[in-house]
Amino acid sequence: MRNIKLTIEYDGTHYAGWQRQKNVLAIQQVIEEAIEKITSEKVDIIGSSRTDTGVHAKAYAANFHTNSNIPAERFREAINSKLPKDIVILYSEQVDEGFHARYSSTGKKYCYSILNRLQPPAINRNYVYHHKGNLDIEKMQQASKYFIGTHDFAAFKNTGSSVKTSVRTITQSEVVKCGDIVKYYVAGDGFLYNMVRIMVGTLLEVGNGKVKPEDIAKILSSKDRGNAGKSAPALGLCLEEVYY
Amino acid sequence: MRNIKLTIEYDGTHYAGWQRQKNVLAIQQVIEEAIEKITSEKVDIIGSSRTDTGVHAKAYAANFHTNSNIPAERFREAINSKLPKDIVILYSEQVDEGFHARYSSTGKKYCYSILNRLQPPAINRNYVYHHKGNLDIEKMQQASKYFIGTHDFAAFKNTGSSVKTSVRTITQSEVVKCGDIVKYYVAGDGFLYNMVRIMVGTLLEVGNGKVKPEDIAKILSSKDRGNAGKSAPALGLCLEEVYY
Repeated sequence: MRNIKLTIEYDGTHYAGWQRQKNVLAIQQVIEEAIEKITSEKVDIIGSSRTDTGVHAKAYAANFHTNSNIPAERFREAINSKLPKDIVILYSEQVDEGFHARYSSTGKKYCYSILNRLQPPAINRNYVYHHKGNLDIEKMQQASKYFIGTHDFAAFKNTGSSVKTSVRTITQSEVVKCGDIVKYYVAGDGFLYNMVRIMVGTLLEVGNGKVKPEDIAKILSSKDRGNAGKSAPALGLCLEEVYY
Repeated sequence: MRNIKLTIEYDGTHYAGWQRQKNVLAIQQVIEEAIEKITSEKVDIIGSSRTDTGVHAKAYAANFHTNSNIPAERFREAINSKLPKDIVILYSEQVDEGFHARYSSTGKKYCYSILNRLQPPAINRNYVYHHKGNLDIEKMQQASKYFIGTHDFAAFKNTGSSVKTSVRTITQSEVVKCGDIVKYYVAGDGFLYNMVRIMVGTLLEVGNGKVKPEDIAKILSSKDRGNAGKSAPALGLCLEEVYY
């Protein structure tokens, strides 16, 4: 059997996230059904992570095993021909038997987009979180630096998935303003359940003055979810890259 | 009667353009009905221009007259409360009696967005035109400069609206590449029917080598629509600004 890796862009607006579930439509299911149509095989795609309902991805990674003799590079077009417009396979390639989209991953990069102006967005409204109130960008930038390094992120994790440890290493944590769009880029070796959205929610509290930049260190060391901010809405979040 | 100017952002994907028409839904109609709901007056909104089906706007301008005593600045929120999510009033303000969104305008700025890569877009798919083939951006940049200045744009106009003259002055004409997105910015004192889309269609022919940059001058002086490129698809086009 060959092992095929897919790199996938999707608009998560109309899906219940990546992972196949009962009674709702997940991206995994849509792609598995598309592959079944072209290979006549039942496949189980291995995804690099769960993503929440409404979260987007510019380069989600996944893999599946197949006995089909379709050339690896041809899967891209073949699967795309069976997919709706909001899911697109960017690349398909053969990988080593041992490659596992989740366990082989060495890290991920996310981007969270905030539209910071009085009026809600008409254009791009499914891809940005609209925040009306003033934001102190400089303070958010200072605060974002406290996330860099290896920390226990227990305070930045919602219950809902079991993991052995909540220690993660963050290598990039950057707030960038461009016009009325504020983007938060964060990369690391792994992310806990809702971790990026809670980090953004907390940065927003720094932006509106409720939390001081240096408080981030205290929130981290408290390991208490109650001390961090709310989870920012899913629609602003986009998985940008999965590292191997 | 007071004269109220509106600045409007809209996602044109699901509308038959700005102008009210029979049997299809236009943005003008949706906004007129929203205003009627809050003022109980029948209003005729004057728009700064028609826009085609699927074209977007970040700052469309329009005005209407009203006997209502709602403060001018309050119209923004009041109208927004009656609008669907893909149309947003950004500003509402009282203007001089003589202000006319179309006749008072001194110019407009558009942006056309092209996604230049093999794979179609999942994210932002309603806001970019997907062009697979290689594009020579440098040649497109050279070509774009031939549009600057005062020219007869008869070759860059589709039939469908009657205008006295097809002479227009272009003040900005710029091709910018950022990753796999190519943006074309064009500003001028006015635009003919489908003019920007035909300019983009012709720049794409320069990009794929069918037309030389210097041929733009010849196409202009020919005044023959047959010599210019096809109209580029509407969805990549966005009205960025209306000047007064």
